[in-house]
Amino acid sequence: MVERTPTVTLLTDFGPKDSFIGIMKGVITSIAPGTVIIDLCHAVAAQDVVEAGFLLASSYTYFPEGTIHVAVVDPGVGSDRAILALRARGYYFIVPDNGLIVPTLKDPAEADEIVRVENDTYFLKPVSSTFHGRDIFAAVAGHLGKGVPLRTFGPEVHGFDRGTFPVPSRRSLPDGRIEFEGEVVHVDNFGNLITTVFLEEELRVLSVRLADREITASAATYADVLPGQLLSLRGSSGFLEVAANRGSARDVLGCDRGEKVHVELVKEPIK
Amino acid sequence: MVERTPTVTLLTDFGPKDSFIGIMKGVITSIAPGTVIIDLCHAVAAQDVVEAGFLLASSYTYFPEGTIHVAVVDPGVGSDRAILALRARGYYFIVPDNGLIVPTLKDPAEADEIVRVENDTYFLKPVSSTFHGRDIFAAVAGHLGKGVPLRTFGPEVHGFDRGTFPVPSRRSLPDGRIEFEGEVVHVDNFGNLITTVFLEEELRVLSVRLADREITASAATYADVLPGQLLSLRGSSGFLEVAANRGSARDVLGCDRGEKVHVELVKEPIK
Amino acid sequence: MVERTPTVTLLTDFGPKDSFIGIMKGVITSIAPGTVIIDLCHAVAAQDVVEAGFLLASSYTYFPEGTIHVAVVDPGVGSDRAILALRARGYYFIVPDNGLIVPTLKDPAEADEIVRVENDTYFLKPVSSTFHGRDIFAAVAGHLGKGVPLRTFGPEVHGFDRGTFPVPSRRSLPDGRIEFEGEVVHVDNFGNLITTVFLEEELRVLSVRLADREITASAATYADVLPGQLLSLRGSSGFLEVAANRGSARDVLGCDRGEKVHVELVKEPIK
Repeated sequence: MVERTPTVTLLTDFGPKDSFIGIMKGVITSIAPGTVIIDLCHAVAAQDVVEAGFLLASSYTYFPEGTIHVAVVDPGVGSDRAILALRARGYYFIVPDNGLIVPTLKDPAEADEIVRVENDTYFLKPVSSTFHGRDIFAAVAGHLGKGVPLRTFGPEVHGFDRGTFPVPSRRSLPDGRIEFEGEVVHVDNFGNLITTVFLEEELRVLSVRLADREITASAATYADVLPGQLLSLRGSSGFLEVAANRGSARDVLGCDRGEKVHVELVKEPIK
Repeated sequence: MVERTPTVTLLTDFGPKDSFIGIMKGVITSIAPGTVIIDLCHAVAAQDVVEAGFLLASSYTYFPEGTIHVAVVDPGVGSDRAILALRARGYYFIVPDNGLIVPTLKDPAEADEIVRVENDTYFLKPVSSTFHGRDIFAAVAGHLGKGVPLRTFGPEVHGFDRGTFPVPSRRSLPDGRIEFEGEVVHVDNFGNLITTVFLEEELRVLSVRLADREITASAATYADVLPGQLLSLRGSSGFLEVAANRGSARDVLGCDRGEKVHVELVKEPIK
Repeated sequence: MVERTPTVTLLTDFGPKDSFIGIMKGVITSIAPGTVIIDLCHAVAAQDVVEAGFLLASSYTYFPEGTIHVAVVDPGVGSDRAILALRARGYYFIVPDNGLIVPTLKDPAEADEIVRVENDTYFLKPVSSTFHGRDIFAAVAGHLGKGVPLRTFGPEVHGFDRGTFPVPSRRSLPDGRIEFEGEVVHVDNFGNLITTVFLEEELRVLSVRLADREITASAATYADVLPGQLLSLRGSSGFLEVAANRGSARDVLGCDRGEKVHVELVKEPIK
């Protein structure tokens, strides 16, 4: 076991109204004093595994190597869904086995190690049926942070539940264009609509159709268009987003998470 | 004074709109660098001492021994209500003397030590009339965390204001049944209705009546009933709660905090 | 470079719905492990530089000397607005050059040092066009906290954009009275209306007119008037505020941020 200060992030749908998140931090701190605990987001829509998966995928790389990312958006709490602990790309993840990890790891083979968390030696007891975030996720994160090896928490597995993360369809046309059918997966605080369409750097947007509107402007940043004007851009996490400069694209377009989006791109260096 | 890293939790009704909580953390960190500060909850309904008391009581045990729990839900700020600092069950509490501590400590005799905080040597000066959270609670928490003995902050007292925490009435029937009349004391982010009725482990729920509805299902966890179905269960903090599997009991029942609840139980091992 | 544990505060309009704030903390922690990061407020109205400026000005002094205050309310992100790093009164500030700093530092000459942040050696790369909070503000805060000298981040400048912070007008009358015309700059979680009028300690309020109402009561604290009654008082940060004891002045008066306020004062010791 290495001497180190572990970092743990928390991603939940617990919202601000409760002490659930504080309690999880208390459990981690009790087990592993000195752990740096960082809130990733707690305003995921209740039980919205897809939004949580998107937020985790677009955030986890910005933390120190070895960070333990704990995500508790878990409609199946108390049922027999498994809890997974994974090691991949220099990070650890503790997640319910419900597809939340899919946007981060498209394929189980991308993980260095996956275990099904079962060893209740490391759980807080008695384990409640309704708050595994406290009794299992936080407790295991604490022990993992203290240096307990991943394999100790349960048997190795080689797959995970893929859940229902909406994978955009991609079609290459003969003339070189590429079409994506995706959807809005997250709306941020500014009303920007973030889609499932990941925009590789060499792709240039030709057009975006969303909520019966054609978004013709495509730019590098909000300020490249007039105030109030809609534009599409490569968001800070690489996904295509639709925004309104100094305004809310959600309000302008009257649409929300789940809205279908049609994107036409062409392979060309962006500028 | 022992060398240690103190932990402080904060519970307030300050909400997210202000810098009040950040300022309290700044004060604590200025006095006691290295203190681990954890938010318990800041979305208590404005001046709702009862909800705050419930959240504190159901959370404080999950923190490291010696943790200083600071609760500032304080409609009487600036008046002559006292501020108490208590030591009980291995923890410290700094609270306004308005009943907030009652759900945690039913009786003052359960505390090892209670002092009325009066020694302004340890206050931030000038003491404002409207932000004792900053000038007294946070400052005293910082000094207490640094190792200043509790007795230094003011004279010992042996009682506290009981406030208006709604104590459920309990009636034992000749046939062995037990009836509780309680109320909903908190609604969590999922719409689960948490009541004042503490469910000792050996009690089994026979029926729950709430908002003119009879909740007949009683289970160990949400997933034990069909999606959308109402059930009663022993919540993660031991209180009886009414929930809807993958739904919101508040929305289904159209009721909120303060709603009366009638519970019939029988003394029997659960399962 | 001095060995020390830096403290960083974060003030943004990112709201609770995203992982942006968590990501900024991840970036800071990656660069400067051990940094104490404290949230000042993240519920500033979207792109409301004025409210952010007020919150910073009324909060920054409560933190340990040397604290790095990072404020990202930045409607011009991606445009050519500058980013400033300042040293003043024992603190550091990293802000967009849009007037946010004005309530804190009325005059650039009050700063010990101002640099325009330009040295991309210290940025996270590639620098996105839409999330300078992550790629520039957080990264620079991390390096500054580690001890990189301010001057390293860019060229020294001697002024800043004053933005549109509403400065109250002040008029001294022959009879000794002083009149202020100001406005409501912030509404807190309790519905208290905080104005732009800074109340020096020796000024006594004669009358406050707001939303066509004359507020006649002026007191030291809420509890000095009857429940529900309106009063004006010197708020905890020194600004005049209008409140309702155990109620919401916003609801009683039906007004919000931006509402004009007329104040008459007289120079006299309070009490």
